[in-house]
Amino acid sequence: VIDLRSDTVTRPNPAMRAAMADAEVGDDVYGEDPTVRRLEEAAAARFGRQAALYCPSGVMCNQLWLRVLAPGGTEAIVEDNAHVVNYEAGAGALLGHVQFRTVPGSRGVLDPEVVAAAIRPDVFPLTPTSLVCVEQTHNRRGGAVTPLETLDRLRRLTDEAGVALYLDGARVFNAAVAAGVDVADYAALVDGLSFCTSKALSAPVGSAMVGDADAIVEARRWRRRYGGGMRQAGVIAAASLVALEQMTDRLVEDHAHARLLADAVAEVYPEGLEAGTVETNIVCIENVDAAALVEALADRGVRAGALGPSTARLVTHPDVTEDDCRRAAAALKDALADVAR
Amino acid sequence: VIDLRSDTVTRPNPAMRAAMADAEVGDDVYGEDPTVRRLEEAAAARFGRQAALYCPSGVMCNQLWLRVLAPGGTEAIVEDNAHVVNYEAGAGALLGHVQFRTVPGSRGVLDPEVVAAAIRPDVFPLTPTSLVCVEQTHNRRGGAVTPLETLDRLRRLTDEAGVALYLDGARVFNAAVAAGVDVADYAALVDGLSFCTSKALSAPVGSAMVGDADAIVEARRWRRRYGGGMRQAGVIAAASLVALEQMTDRLVEDHAHARLLADAVAEVYPEGLEAGTVETNIVCIENVDAAALVEALADRGVRAGALGPSTARLVTHPDVTEDDCRRAAAALKDALADVAR
Amino acid sequence: VIDLRSDTVTRPNPAMRAAMADAEVGDDVYGEDPTVRRLEEAAAARFGRQAALYCPSGVMCNQLWLRVLAPGGTEAIVEDNAHVVNYEAGAGALLGHVQFRTVPGSRGVLDPEVVAAAIRPDVFPLTPTSLVCVEQTHNRRGGAVTPLETLDRLRRLTDEAGVALYLDGARVFNAAVAAGVDVADYAALVDGLSFCTSKALSAPVGSAMVGDADAIVEARRWRRRYGGGMRQAGVIAAASLVALEQMTDRLVEDHAHARLLADAVAEVYPEGLEAGTVETNIVCIENVDAAALVEALADRGVRAGALGPSTARLVTHPDVTEDDCRRAAAALKDALADVAR
Amino acid sequence: VIDLRSDTVTRPNPAMRAAMADAEVGDDVYGEDPTVRRLEEAAAARFGRQAALYCPSGVMCNQLWLRVLAPGGTEAIVEDNAHVVNYEAGAGALLGHVQFRTVPGSRGVLDPEVVAAAIRPDVFPLTPTSLVCVEQTHNRRGGAVTPLETLDRLRRLTDEAGVALYLDGARVFNAAVAAGVDVADYAALVDGLSFCTSKALSAPVGSAMVGDADAIVEARRWRRRYGGGMRQAGVIAAASLVALEQMTDRLVEDHAHARLLADAVAEVYPEGLEAGTVETNIVCIENVDAAALVEALADRGVRAGALGPSTARLVTHPDVTEDDCRRAAAALKDALADVAR
Ligand SMILES: [Ca+2]
Ligand SMILES: [Ca+2]
Ligand SMILES: [Ca+2]
Ligand SMILES: [Ca+2]
Ligand SMILES: [Ca+2]
Ligand SMILES: [Ca+2]
Repeated sequence: VIDLRSDTVTRPNPAMRAAMADAEVGDDVYGEDPTVRRLEEAAAARFGRQAALYCPSGVMCNQLWLRVLAPGGTEAIVEDNAHVVNYEAGAGALLGHVQFRTVPGSRGVLDPEVVAAAIRPDVFPLTPTSLVCVEQTHNRRGGAVTPLETLDRLRRLTDEAGVALYLDGARVFNAAVAAGVDVADYAALVDGLSFCTSKALSAPVGSAMVGDADAIVEARRWRRRYGGGMRQAGVIAAASLVALEQMTDRLVEDHAHARLLADAVAEVYPEGLEAGTVETNIVCIENVDAAALVEALADRGVRAGALGPSTARLVTHPDVTEDDCRRAAAALKDALADVAR
Repeated sequence: VIDLRSDTVTRPNPAMRAAMADAEVGDDVYGEDPTVRRLEEAAAARFGRQAALYCPSGVMCNQLWLRVLAPGGTEAIVEDNAHVVNYEAGAGALLGHVQFRTVPGSRGVLDPEVVAAAIRPDVFPLTPTSLVCVEQTHNRRGGAVTPLETLDRLRRLTDEAGVALYLDGARVFNAAVAAGVDVADYAALVDGLSFCTSKALSAPVGSAMVGDADAIVEARRWRRRYGGGMRQAGVIAAASLVALEQMTDRLVEDHAHARLLADAVAEVYPEGLEAGTVETNIVCIENVDAAALVEALADRGVRAGALGPSTARLVTHPDVTEDDCRRAAAALKDALADVAR
Repeated sequence: VIDLRSDTVTRPNPAMRAAMADAEVGDDVYGEDPTVRRLEEAAAARFGRQAALYCPSGVMCNQLWLRVLAPGGTEAIVEDNAHVVNYEAGAGALLGHVQFRTVPGSRGVLDPEVVAAAIRPDVFPLTPTSLVCVEQTHNRRGGAVTPLETLDRLRRLTDEAGVALYLDGARVFNAAVAAGVDVADYAALVDGLSFCTSKALSAPVGSAMVGDADAIVEARRWRRRYGGGMRQAGVIAAASLVALEQMTDRLVEDHAHARLLADAVAEVYPEGLEAGTVETNIVCIENVDAAALVEALADRGVRAGALGPSTARLVTHPDVTEDDCRRAAAALKDALADVAR
Repeated sequence: VIDLRSDTVTRPNPAMRAAMADAEVGDDVYGEDPTVRRLEEAAAARFGRQAALYCPSGVMCNQLWLRVLAPGGTEAIVEDNAHVVNYEAGAGALLGHVQFRTVPGSRGVLDPEVVAAAIRPDVFPLTPTSLVCVEQTHNRRGGAVTPLETLDRLRRLTDEAGVALYLDGARVFNAAVAAGVDVADYAALVDGLSFCTSKALSAPVGSAMVGDADAIVEARRWRRRYGGGMRQAGVIAAASLVALEQMTDRLVEDHAHARLLADAVAEVYPEGLEAGTVETNIVCIENVDAAALVEALADRGVRAGALGPSTARLVTHPDVTEDDCRRAAAALKDALADVAR
């Protein structure tokens, strides 16, 4: 079976297994795990920021950044289809006490003019805007990349308004590779960011927050409250370190594989790609009976996911080869012929 | 000075003063204030629902209904410019723990298709939709009325989705009078509603929640937590009862007065009425330097408000006469000539 | 019927009715209600503090002070039987996000040594102490008075620890009258206090927060969120102003009346007064079948309350005369003879 | 250096390293990690309950159980020195929205009579009690064991009151070994429990919740919100499985080692053991200058911790041998001779 449901299904590779087996560890709640420290220092360095904090999940990174950057009773501007809106079970309001203003994006990319119009000043009794969130790449909108120039415009307008800017960079390395941008250039523009090592970077567990030292100190306190403090976390951080150091450049391959899939769709069902070109490792097929397509693919040995009633999603990652993807592309053509009339 | 900043500025009329002076009272925390009971029964009867609960403000009604209808960790769909989004200082997330999905409306009126597309099922880990909120009339969008037919369509689609429907009817009597609809017809379509007696109905203090008996029992418990339980509240409920019984039909006058103002704008600055006709007692003037217009009007003895940098607002109410409004219309023409180039 | 369930049952007196009928009002959400302003200024002056804020209830005052003085995620030290612990439906945690450390008091009076031992420093990951709450007089513990000297010791130790001190002075005038202390002397020792006008001061509705100007500004913002902003609130503030100006000195009468009741208990059932002497207007009768006593009193035309299975409570107030209390004392002796074996 | 600060400092043993290296993994957010499933099934079986949920920390287990067992706006009765009160940075109120009633215990063991007296019925506007929490063993009170008979009495009284019972069993295996009780006997008496594998069971990361299937389903949803959902978590669950299967019986050794330390204290400074005998692996030394003792021990190659100004703590665990503990006992005698006058 070729599993293209998500890049989260990746298993640790041999280098990760070895690193985990040998990892030097300590009690990270006391700040004494040398491998966690190495990972956090490497992450900070890679993104050109002061500090980083290792967390058990990307959801926790998002939630902790909401806490650090958006005081309770303020508003965060987020794109309608963002992960933090759709997939975090309401935690932003329930635990984070921050109000969301959801605005439409173009393939998930925020329009700076829309954002500027939505910002509210801190004049009682208005709900003041404290934060703008960008998802890089955008999961539900086909792995779309927010251009550096767009991020720069968002930075300038948020600066002017005294509003923070957050980059949910769960797949920020996919964006960087696709756009030919250094991740540090994204990082330089935001108050905080997070990235994930357990998706196409193949680590089993772990995301990290990156930002200013004082924000990370505050995040550490919040992490405790959310139950994210782990003891000898070096055993998993070791794999995340391999992910960070060895797995980012090869993402070009996943992107090429995704284009194989996209080309197949374009060939037999161009209206399925209405949302635009495939930029990274996510292929969203729209205007289909998603459940039927998922089932038709399953019959052909390919696992895909449904994002909604009429949108299916396939995601490439290191655990599928070019050959797998060619076979998946063939299956996709075949399945689409059946399903999309 | 002719104060058209808001209909909230209304002072109690002589009938209200008299009713307050004579009100029979008891301890409402024990449920023993006869005047509060009479008001709650009258409100329930007027809206054709089982029960009502008197509250110190419309904000509290909104917040308590969020609590009753939207469990923590779920999502409420609200129009971008709704009061609960803009003017309640983030309480929905901070105290109510409900996530907002803000969607654009047409003059504040929700589009049922947009709402239907935004509803999310209760499938882990999605944030499920629990509630749709309608503001009747819509404060920030020129007092626009959501037609009964639109509300009916929202009811049908929320029923189908198992989602609650709430009517923030702070000015629901303005809508009913303008549309020629019985408020009970609105009430029949929603899970809960609230209305305010302290705006154009002239009461000094007080809003009420109306709905099913069990929802109101639950709301009473929440009211305690939010600090809304008052003791001999009959002294203010007496005025609210006068408001409910004597002040709703005359709203036609306020609407006629608002049209005097709108006609003045139409005459000298039609682009200021871009948003559409004036249906009730609120006149929004758009595409102007709002601060300048407010100041120019103040110079001419008329107080107005700014909703944003380019939108000014005037609101008619019982404390201004037809003559006041004719003078205000003249001032408005004069001021617009100065301010709008 | 002689209603001694609580001093909250008091109805506005004729002076209050007159003041309400004549009250000059404005829109207090805009800060324009002259009567509310007069009340707030009078309250600030009476307590010797910078500012005050009028609220619909004592519960709201307590909750807003928790918000202002105890940041989310910190701990407040409160006496086991305090109102904020027992009677506010969990709002402190649910809405206020503050953790309670409940400690035993002596007749509700905190022991400074117990408090000092309970204070926790702000060392991660400890839950830091931010606040100590004192209830003056103590409702559930027989209207007991926290002596000025005790409050002073609490002030010194909280100062040393960098912890705030709050006085829930719902009945602070009863304490002041009983102890011969100026309320300003209590107020001088705390970061914030609140007092209630709707209990033995006879107002129908209204409590107020008193403290530093900046704290009150912050409280005003919180009041909006909790739904406590009222429009022409001057109609009730007028009565609260009469309460503050005319009704505090006469509390000595209520205290004398309470001693009549206490003497009756002492005569026929001394073990019922185990908790100590009656200092103010609340008489707790312990070691009885409270439900039976309440019923036996009801049969004799006297309404009392049960605080728990073995504690009954009677409270004197301006709506009962000395003669009422003598009759109630006789009924009490009779009822106790029946109920307490 | 002999590190006795805590049993959390334990590093994974060779069997764990091997299990982690070989662990079969899948995406646990999809419920597809076979090793996590095996651990959860083994945990459920060991405790004789229906289901279990693996979490990144014991703090998260505590917080999720609060969420599952204590609805927002209710009260949990907890011992004054419990971990959830002292060491979780206020999360119970801030994120969990549950009010704490802290009551004194005897060496951390709750007195059923005190608990019974503290339970409040669900009568508006009282804050109803929903939960009683027991910490087994009690961390801050010298690793004391709550006897099975005490737990049984708590169960009977909570059943009678309709209140849930939770066992924070971070060190429940220490209790079971010391008391000669099967952990399933504890588990049979409670609505939910959690246990930790990263303390004296030597796993690097991981705690688990155990209880009824429907409670665990609900906990899984909460875990998502708190950011505790991990992907290929089998890599750490593999070590936790070794912990559960191989490391519980040997806790008798840690207890014997703790007694060596306790004997040393008893010999030279008996007043340091005022709190009672050492039952498990934690030795609290009271009535000392804790900071001075910690420093004196550090000078002698032994790391200890300070629980407060006058209480030091030493904890034995698998990474220290009998010989280490004999040397630590000697150092302790020496240090106490210096520090305790
Ligand atoms: Ca992975
Ligand atoms: Ca009014
Ligand atoms: Ca929107
Ligand atoms: Ca009263
Ligand atoms: Ca206590
Ligand atoms: Ca460990």
